Amino acid sequence: MEEISINLRELLFDAIRSKNFPKVREIFDTYPNIDIADSVNEIDPNDIESIHYLVYIFKIIKPAFSSEFFSELDTEIQEKLITFLTNEQVGILVQESANDELADFLEEWPANVVAKVLQNTKPDQRKVINQLLGYKDDTAGAIMTTEYITLFEDTKVKDALNTIRQVGKNVETIYTLFVRNKKFDLIGVLDLDDLVFAQSDEILGNVCNTAFQSVDVNTDEEEVAQIFKRYDLNAIAVLNEDKKLTGIITIDDIVDVIEKENTEDIEAMGKVAPLKDSYMDTPIFKLAMKCLPWLLILMVLSIGSIALQNQFQFLIGTLTAVSVFLTTICDTGGNSGSQSSTLVIRGLATHDFELNAKGFFTVLWKELRVAGIVASIAAVFTFGFCMFLFAVHIVEIPDTFVNVNAHGENLTLIWLSLAGSVSITLFITIVVSKILGVCMPFLVSKMKLDPAVVAGPVITTIMDLVSLSMYFAILLSAFTMFGWTLN
Amino acid sequence: MEEISINLRELLFDAIRSKNFPKVREIFDTYPNIDIADSVNEIDPNDIESIHYLVYIFKIIKPAFSSEFFSELDTEIQEKLITFLTNEQVGILVQESANDELADFLEEWPANVVAKVLQNTKPDQRKVINQLLGYKDDTAGAIMTTEYITLFEDTKVKDALNTIRQVGKNVETIYTLFVRNKKFDLIGVLDLDDLVFAQSDEILGNVCNTAFQSVDVNTDEEEVAQIFKRYDLNAIAVLNEDKKLTGIITIDDIVDVIEKENTEDIEAMGKVAPLKDSYMDTPIFKLAMKCLPWLLILMVLSIGSIALQNQFQFLIGTLTAVSVFLTTICDTGGNSGSQSSTLVIRGLATHDFELNAKGFFTVLWKELRVAGIVASIAAVFTFGFCMFLFAVHIVEIPDTFVNVNAHGENLTLIWLSLAGSVSITLFITIVVSKILGVCMPFLVSKMKLDPAVVAGPVITTIMDLVSLSMYFAILLSAFTMFGWTLN
Repeated sequence: MEEISINLRELLFDAIRSKNFPKVREIFDTYPNIDIADSVNEIDPNDIESIHYLVYIFKIIKPAFSSEFFSELDTEIQEKLITFLTNEQVGILVQESANDELADFLEEWPANVVAKVLQNTKPDQRKVINQLLGYKDDTAGAIMTTEYITLFEDTKVKDALNTIRQVGKNVETIYTLFVRNKKFDLIGVLDLDDLVFAQSDEILGNVCNTAFQSVDVNTDEEEVAQIFKRYDLNAIAVLNEDKKLTGIITIDDIVDVIEKENTEDIEAMGKVAPLKDSYMDTPIFKLAMKCLPWLLILMVLSIGSIALQNQFQFLIGTLTAVSVFLTTICDTGGNSGSQSSTLVIRGLATHDFELNAKGFFTVLWKELRVAGIVASIAAVFTFGFCMFLFAVHIVEIPDTFVNVNAHGENLTLIWLSLAGSVSITLFITIVVSKILGVCMPFLVSKMKLDPAVVAGPVITTIMDLVSLSMYFAILLSAFTMFGWTLN
Repeated sequence: MEEISINLRELLFDAIRSKNFPKVREIFDTYPNIDIADSVNEIDPNDIESIHYLVYIFKIIKPAFSSEFFSELDTEIQEKLITFLTNEQVGILVQESANDELADFLEEWPANVVAKVLQNTKPDQRKVINQLLGYKDDTAGAIMTTEYITLFEDTKVKDALNTIRQVGKNVETIYTLFVRNKKFDLIGVLDLDDLVFAQSDEILGNVCNTAFQSVDVNTDEEEVAQIFKRYDLNAIAVLNEDKKLTGIITIDDIVDVIEKENTEDIEAMGKVAPLKDSYMDTPIFKLAMKCLPWLLILMVLSIGSIALQNQFQFLIGTLTAVSVFLTTICDTGGNSGSQSSTLVIRGLATHDFELNAKGFFTVLWKELRVAGIVASIAAVFTFGFCMFLFAVHIVEIPDTFVNVNAHGENLTLIWLSLAGSVSITLFITIVVSKILGVCMPFLVSKMKLDPAVVAGPVITTIMDLVSLSMYFAILLSAFTMFGWTLN
C-alpha cells in the first residue's frame, strides 16, 4: 500500500514537472481520487514546491474530478491550496463541491480561508451552506445534502429520464428521486430502477412509492441509520418543521454515521471520551484530556470501597491471607457485570429488544437464568481453584493465625472455610452484577444518557462495594461460626 | 411501534378472515414488508390458525412481494410455513428468493424443511446454492450474490438499457453493471447513472470504468467492507481463483457486515465470546457458555497476582492500611491500559494507521507523550487524594503501627510516605499500561489473532502484576528509608 502510494505521487509529480498534461489527466482517469489524494497527503503542507504542483492539477483536470480530489485532501493541505488558487478557481471548486461537504470543511478551516471561499460562492449556494452550518451536530439536518432531484407528479416517465440526464451530474444521487405535487408537498419517492422498468408514457404519480420513509431535520443521525438498515434504503427524504422536503441523506453518509457511532460506543467502553477526529488527527494534549477525566472520576468513585476496606483492616490484620483474593473478587464482579451490560447496550443499540417495560422484563428474566448457570459453575470452579491455591502453597495461612486466633485448628478446615467464603461471595457477586448489568443500561437510556458511557463505571463502582461487603460479611460469619478470635 | 405492530397484524388477519383479498394486497402495497413481517413474527409458531393465515397470504400476493416478506419472517415461522405450503408454492418462493439469502436460511433450517426446499429448486439454482454453502463463513464468497447483470463490451448503451429492463427485476442490483469481453473476462464496471448519462449509440467498452475494484471469493468480509467505505461503492465484483467474475456484493450486505463486525468487537471488549445470533435468538445455556470461559480464564490468569500478594502478606500484616489501595491501583492500571488499547485497536480496524513498523512507532511515540501528561497529572491528583483520605480519616493508620513499628513517628510523615508510594506507583503503572496498550494490539494483530479479544485480558493480567510489584517494592523502600520495622 505504502509503496504504491509513493510511486503514484512520483508518477504524478514527474508528469507535472515535465508538463506532460495528458499524462496527468490519464492518472486521474486511471486511479481512484482517494488513492491519488492519499499519496499527496504525505507531503509537508509547507513544502511550497509540492503545493504549486497541486495548483497545477487544479488548472489541468476536469472541475468534477478536482472537487472530488480536493475533498479527499488533508485539511492543512486544503487550506494552503486555497490560499494559492485564484478567486476564479476557488469559485469553480466551490460550485462543483457538494454543499454538505463544503459546510463540513468550513467548520474546520481558519477564518481567512473561509472568507476567501465564501467570497467566491454564489449567493444562493452561500445561503444553503449557512443553513447547513446552523443544524445541530449529529442530526439529519447536519448530514443531509441539498442536491437532489424533485420531479412533478404529472411528469411522464420518459420526460423524467430526460430531466435526470440534464441535471443529474450535479446532484448527490439519481438512484432515489422525489416526486412533488403542485403545492410542493412531497408525495412519493421513486427508485431509479422503478423508473427504468416503468412504461415510458406512465406519469410519475402512478409509479412512485407513496408509502415512503422520511425523517425530520432534527432526527438523531443514529436513528436515521436505524431506518436505513431496517428498510434497506439508498436515500431518505429529510423534511423541515412544515413537512416540506429540505434535503436528502444518502447511504454512503449513513455508512460513515454507523462507523462513527460504533467508534464512540467502543471508545466509551474503553473509558475514553469520544474523540471528535480520528486518533492520528487528535493532538497529544487533547488525547490526554480524553483519557484523564475517567481515570480520575473512577479513582474518586472508588472512595466507597476504600472506606469499606478501611473498616475491615482489623479482619485483614487478623488473617492477612484474606487480602490476596480482594483484587480477583472485584475483577470478577466487574467483568461479569460488563458482560451483561455489553449485551444489553448492544441489544438496545441494534433494536434487538425495545427500551420499554416488556423489553426490560424479558431481558432481566433471561439474564437471571443465565446468571444462575454462570454463578453456579463459577462458584464450584472457584472453590476448587482456591483449595488448589492453598494445597500447592500459592496462598499460605500464617502459622500465628492457626495457633493463636484459630486455637490450633485443623488447617484444612481453615482452607475450606476461606475457599467457601470466596466461592459464596462470587456466586452472589455474579448474580447481582448481572441484575445491575440489565438495570443500569435500561435506566441510563431512559434518562436519555448514553449507556455505553455511564453504565460501565457505575456498575464497577457499585459492584466493588457489593463484592467487598459480601466478602467481609461472609468471612465474619465464618469466624463467628468457628469461634476464631479477631485481633 | 408496538401498537402499530399489533394493529397491522389485526388489519391483515381481519382482511384474510373476511376473505377481503384486495385489502390484503393493498396492505402489502402500503406497508413495508419488514413492518408487516414484524407484526406477524409475534405470533406463536404453533398457532396453526395464524400459520394458515400466512399460507393464504402466499396464495394471494405477488411472488416478488411474498419472497421478500418471507425473508423477514422468524426462522421458526418460516419452517412451519414451508411444511404447510404446496411443493409448487415452495418452488415459486425459492425461484423468487435471492440465492445468497436462501443459502443463509438453509444453514438454519432443520433437515426435513431443507429437503422440501431443495426438492423444489431447479437444478441450476441448486448448484449455485450448494456452491454458496461451500464458501467459508465471513468471506466474500459467503456473502456474495450470484444474481447480477453482465453485458458484452460491444453492446450499445440503448440496447443495454433494454436488456436491463428485461432481466433487471430478477437481479440484486441494477445500479452497478458488469462489462465482459468475448473471453468472458470482466473488463469493466458501469454505474447505472453513467449509462443514463451516456450517448445512446456509444458502446459499453468505451463508457465503463476499467480501473474498478474487485475482491477474491476468499477475501475476508471485513476487508471487503473497508474497500466499500474507501471507494464509496454501491457494489463490487467478486472473482474466483481464475480471475473470472463469480458474484457481486452490494452495499446493503456491507452495512450488515459493518454492524456485525462492530458487534463482535464490542462483545470482545465486554469479555463476551461472539454470539452467532442476536441476543434474543441465543438460548440461555449458550449465553452462559459465551460468558463463562472468559470469567474463568481471567480468574486463572489472576494466579500470578494472587501469588505475588501472598508473598507480601508480611507487609500487609505490618501495616494493614496499605491493603485498602490495592483494588484502586489495579483498577487504574487496567483502565489506563484499556484506554490505549481501545484507541489502537479501533485505529487499526479503521485503517487510521497501518499494521507495520512505521505505524507502530508513530503510535508508540504519540502514546508515550500522552502517557507523560496523563501520568503526571494523575500522580499529583492521587497524592492529594490520598492525603485527603488520611486527613478526613477515611483511611486510618492503626495506632499500634505508629507506636511499635514506626517508633512513635510523626503521623504526617507516615501519611506522606504512603501517599507518595501510591502516587509513584500510579505514575509508573500508567506509563507501562500505555506502552502495553500500544504493543499488545500490534503484536496480537501481527500474530493474526483478534486484538479486541486477546489484548484486553493479557494487558489486565500483566498490569496487575506490574502495579502490585511496583507498589510493594516502593513501600519496602519507604520502610527501609525511614527505618520502620516489619513484622
